[in-house]
Amino acid sequence: MTERGGPAARAVLQQCLQARLQVRPAEEPSKEPSKEPAEAQFVQIDRGMVIYICFFKGATDDILPKMVSTLLNVRLCESDSGKTVSVSELPGSLLIVPQATLGGKVKGRAMQYHDNIGKEDGRRLYGAFVSLCEEELAAASAEVKVKHGTYGNRQVLKLDTNGPYTHLMDF
Amino acid sequence: MTERGGPAARAVLQQCLQARLQVRPAEEPSKEPSKEPAEAQFVQIDRGMVIYICFFKGATDDILPKMVSTLLNVRLCESDSGKTVSVSELPGSLLIVPQATLGGKVKGRAMQYHDNIGKEDGRRLYGAFVSLCEEELAAASAEVKVKHGTYGNRQVLKLDTNGPYTHLMDF
Repeated sequence: MTERGGPAARAVLQQCLQARLQVRPAEEPSKEPSKEPAEAQFVQIDRGMVIYICFFKGATDDILPKMVSTLLNVRLCESDSGKTVSVSELPGSLLIVPQATLGGKVKGRAMQYHDNIGKEDGRRLYGAFVSLCEEELAAASAEVKVKHGTYGNRQVLKLDTNGPYTHLMDF
Repeated sequence: MTERGGPAARAVLQQCLQARLQVRPAEEPSKEPSKEPAEAQFVQIDRGMVIYICFFKGATDDILPKMVSTLLNVRLCESDSGKTVSVSELPGSLLIVPQATLGGKVKGRAMQYHDNIGKEDGRRLYGAFVSLCEEELAAASAEVKVKHGTYGNRQVLKLDTNGPYTHLMDF
């Protein structure tokens, strides 16, 4: 919660068998015909969880440890034996997707994003959130990966699930 | 809003280039070796919007017209020319996914779903919601489809996006 009474951050979680995210778009074709434009670059995880994340005005670093601890330890993944376990226990990989659209509110027929944090503060919090997830999940298992999107870009995403089990968490 | 003070329904929206959802799981292999077990069945849309939907305790049919009108007319889709338009204006197809997990709240390390509507009321509201979306979108364009998952089943989903632009709306 922030001083304005709303949440400081919002996360949407989806379980995946595989997820792929663009982290650099393809280059526009160059004017020099001899130079091949660079292809788009992607990151990918196999089984695990996609975390879409959005920070609101007033969010500070103070909320990050609790957020990360909650997200990585709450039991909402299905193990091979059908038991419900956390992503750390699975163990599963993480794909973290910056998703400012989660802060939107409907106003008439338009979406407004007045409560979203400013771009530079958001970028910093996002980076710190990713680093904390990396530390915590590396401590849980060496087998899993933490991948993430680039803040402020279009998040071209491909997702394959055995049921996304979409969850929402406000912090 | 319901009498308990919380929302009556929650929707999460994602934009897609293509989305595929299982509507009937594959049959278990039969004991009669001559009988081939039925394969899984899927529905699919191309460009459009995925609506994950969850109803809470106290939700009634009264909220459905406003929900459908808001979801189909709010401008959050990107047209070919880069303009922001509604899914009706795009025109895009809809994939509606029942997603009771959206009603979950974290309690310690577990998720609780105490505010979710009962299964039979939820099934009825879900059916009515799908029918209203079908009517409204059919009136907007003959080119688009409304597909939907089967209530109470595992929602095996595959999603391909050019940016999901994930939005949350409570009603």
